Amino acid sequence: MNAALLSQVYEAMTQFDIERAITLVAGMKKADIAEVLEHMPAQFSCQLLEHLPRRAKIFAKIDPAYQAKLVHEFSRASLAEIVSEMPSDKRTDLFKRLDSQEQQALLPALAQAQREDIRRLSTYQEETAGAIMTSEYVTLNQDMTVAEAMQTIRLQAPDAETIYESYIIDEKRHLIGVVSLHELVLAPLQQLIRELMNTDVVSAYVDDDQDEVAKKIAHYDLIALPVIDHQGTLLGIVTYDDAMDVASEEANEDFLKVGGVEASAPSLNIKEASLFLLYRKRVFWLVILVFGSLLSGLGISHFESVIQSNIVLVFFLPLLVGSGGNAGSQSATLMVRALATGDVVMKDWFKLLGRECLVALGLGITMAIAVAILGYIRGDAMVALVLILSMIGIVLIGSIIGMSLPFILDKLGLDPASASAPLVTSICDATGVIIYLFIAAQLLNQVNI
Amino acid sequence: MNAALLSQVYEAMTQFDIERAITLVAGMKKADIAEVLEHMPAQFSCQLLEHLPRRAKIFAKIDPAYQAKLVHEFSRASLAEIVSEMPSDKRTDLFKRLDSQEQQALLPALAQAQREDIRRLSTYQEETAGAIMTSEYVTLNQDMTVAEAMQTIRLQAPDAETIYESYIIDEKRHLIGVVSLHELVLAPLQQLIRELMNTDVVSAYVDDDQDEVAKKIAHYDLIALPVIDHQGTLLGIVTYDDAMDVASEEANEDFLKVGGVEASAPSLNIKEASLFLLYRKRVFWLVILVFGSLLSGLGISHFESVIQSNIVLVFFLPLLVGSGGNAGSQSATLMVRALATGDVVMKDWFKLLGRECLVALGLGITMAIAVAILGYIRGDAMVALVLILSMIGIVLIGSIIGMSLPFILDKLGLDPASASAPLVTSICDATGVIIYLFIAAQLLNQVNI
Repeated sequence: MNAALLSQVYEAMTQFDIERAITLVAGMKKADIAEVLEHMPAQFSCQLLEHLPRRAKIFAKIDPAYQAKLVHEFSRASLAEIVSEMPSDKRTDLFKRLDSQEQQALLPALAQAQREDIRRLSTYQEETAGAIMTSEYVTLNQDMTVAEAMQTIRLQAPDAETIYESYIIDEKRHLIGVVSLHELVLAPLQQLIRELMNTDVVSAYVDDDQDEVAKKIAHYDLIALPVIDHQGTLLGIVTYDDAMDVASEEANEDFLKVGGVEASAPSLNIKEASLFLLYRKRVFWLVILVFGSLLSGLGISHFESVIQSNIVLVFFLPLLVGSGGNAGSQSATLMVRALATGDVVMKDWFKLLGRECLVALGLGITMAIAVAILGYIRGDAMVALVLILSMIGIVLIGSIIGMSLPFILDKLGLDPASASAPLVTSICDATGVIIYLFIAAQLLNQVNI
Repeated sequence: MNAALLSQVYEAMTQFDIERAITLVAGMKKADIAEVLEHMPAQFSCQLLEHLPRRAKIFAKIDPAYQAKLVHEFSRASLAEIVSEMPSDKRTDLFKRLDSQEQQALLPALAQAQREDIRRLSTYQEETAGAIMTSEYVTLNQDMTVAEAMQTIRLQAPDAETIYESYIIDEKRHLIGVVSLHELVLAPLQQLIRELMNTDVVSAYVDDDQDEVAKKIAHYDLIALPVIDHQGTLLGIVTYDDAMDVASEEANEDFLKVGGVEASAPSLNIKEASLFLLYRKRVFWLVILVFGSLLSGLGISHFESVIQSNIVLVFFLPLLVGSGGNAGSQSATLMVRALATGDVVMKDWFKLLGRECLVALGLGITMAIAVAILGYIRGDAMVALVLILSMIGIVLIGSIIGMSLPFILDKLGLDPASASAPLVTSICDATGVIIYLFIAAQLLNQVNI
């Protein structure tokens, strides 16, 4: 984002010099103009959009949350024109963000076909293939020649989101084949589509998760993925650029979850989100963790007398407890990511557990050596021994918990990313306290266990 | 991945029944066959590849790390044939993974042009546009008609990674325009390319970071992005599917970093990576954190006598210390992600700091209320007061540290994702110990500060 240009446009708008503002952005790419508009007050953005050519296309590139804000500023005629010309998936997205009063005001301004399209597309559940597909694509008939197909594509092009893939349907709209423009361009003009088309079509069901759709598009390097119902009827397509958006949204959610922030679509923007929303997204995990920490507290209170007579134990408490939590959150992070990218599946669990134990043992021994020296300096040989045994046990058990929790959540049908660092940390902390103080009580000859 | 099919193929191969194995995979998509091969022993994969049609294309879809393993199993003739037919970017990728002896064995088997292409492409630095670009694309001349351009595209199609974007170059190979197949198909056959082409081309420099390239492709919804040198000479293109791979690789790295696992390309696969590699990637942060925790330990030892005379304080120690670390790692997570997605920039810092303080105050008060009740039950009103003041202070300061650290790292030119949860947690923990015990010492009338 060019900050200098942004402030020039802003300045021009505050001086009511719309013409200068228009000149400044006129030569820019649609996506860049959209970005400029997103950084302006809604009123300015609308004034600019009223005067810009290709305004529906620019509007479609604006972040949907901001689109919904702009809706109130447009005259009804402009709004109807812009919304009519938006791609059908973006239009439905916007529609779903409006409140029911706004929705009712918008619908009559649209053509009958568009109203039905919006109604149909907005019935699909969020985060499914249906919710992100567009209904604008090229369909062909298998009895056409390549020349006829090219003519059909030319006619349908203005309304299609892509012409690089065309879908062949039968009279009941069942999807029976796909042909790429690449293949059409290379084929003889008189060849029949039925001979040229690929009948083994990669497709998604309308109720598939959007994440699955994005993965399929990436796996097969597709430009677009057709979406069908369970009878095989073609309902829409998802294009690769929308799949890229989905993939980055999902990565974002996982990232926030592992950091203990509750994530949900529409994704959280730290700059724009209301203070209360930020509070609400964060308070859940923090309060859970307060009660999680009480487990550690209970562990400690059970061993109060061993602490009181060996106060040096408190010096090492944060270190030992923290190490278990850290080792655990590391292995949870690796595992959550591996599950998300499909690198590992359930049946790998036992093999992975064995590997994890060996790695954790190595880590535990390394760290035990580091703290044993400190333990000997601040305490005595016995304290050093307590630290060595505790550290190895804590890192080992922490890693096993961190590795297992995402699998357990996955098995329970919950999102493994919820095995976020804070949750694992909290469980490992409490386990660590108990291991440490139990070993200390044994070795330092206390009897209060 | 279909596990049943996988074991059928595996069984057929162990029984030397290659024909059955071939029949099992023959109808599958290239990407799926590649996935089957990745799950077989190298020897079996090679035997299958020797007999499969389209083997170069299937081989190109296999994970590069596994490709390098397969290289040793092929006969020299097969290897030369497969490597010759790979797309140039994948071929260079593979070449870079071979040791110098293997490289020297491969080069003579390739045609002169391919050898030079490999040499040229492998000189670009890792993680730049040059390292991920391919040299197979369609070029046109601005004086061609649309009909001539279409003919040129048909001729170049077999060797091009995409024909959906064609690049117009002058006699010095300077990039002067771009035209999509979409535009060509809709244009009159006699129109000149110079009239049709878009001269305002979105491009990347060969030394741009691969992450920038992926962002550009997503931002402008491109099918391919041309890569030029600083004189404007066209050197290659990066296609959208490679950009998707880059984006998911970068998200993966950030995710691992925030979990305190050292990340670097080639990315870590928890199932395949050697135990020592997994150990090495994790031990760094864990040992750093051991020393981080010592800060907390030092804080505690400074206040040992206040603890000894108020042992109830130890009960709440993990809770208060943990809360600061958790709040801090939450705000660090939000900030790291916001910096990575470009949602916030440096100049937003002060505004964000103000917002963060308000949110943290809200969080601190909520949590203070929860623990104050517990403090009153286990201790007395004075302990409750210590807890309230400590909790608010700790959450506030933890959040400010969590918010600031990614910015500071960014300013220092370091990767903000290194402000990983463990680092922030460790700093916040120590700060929390000091705040808590300092307030306790003051209010519980101790004099040892």
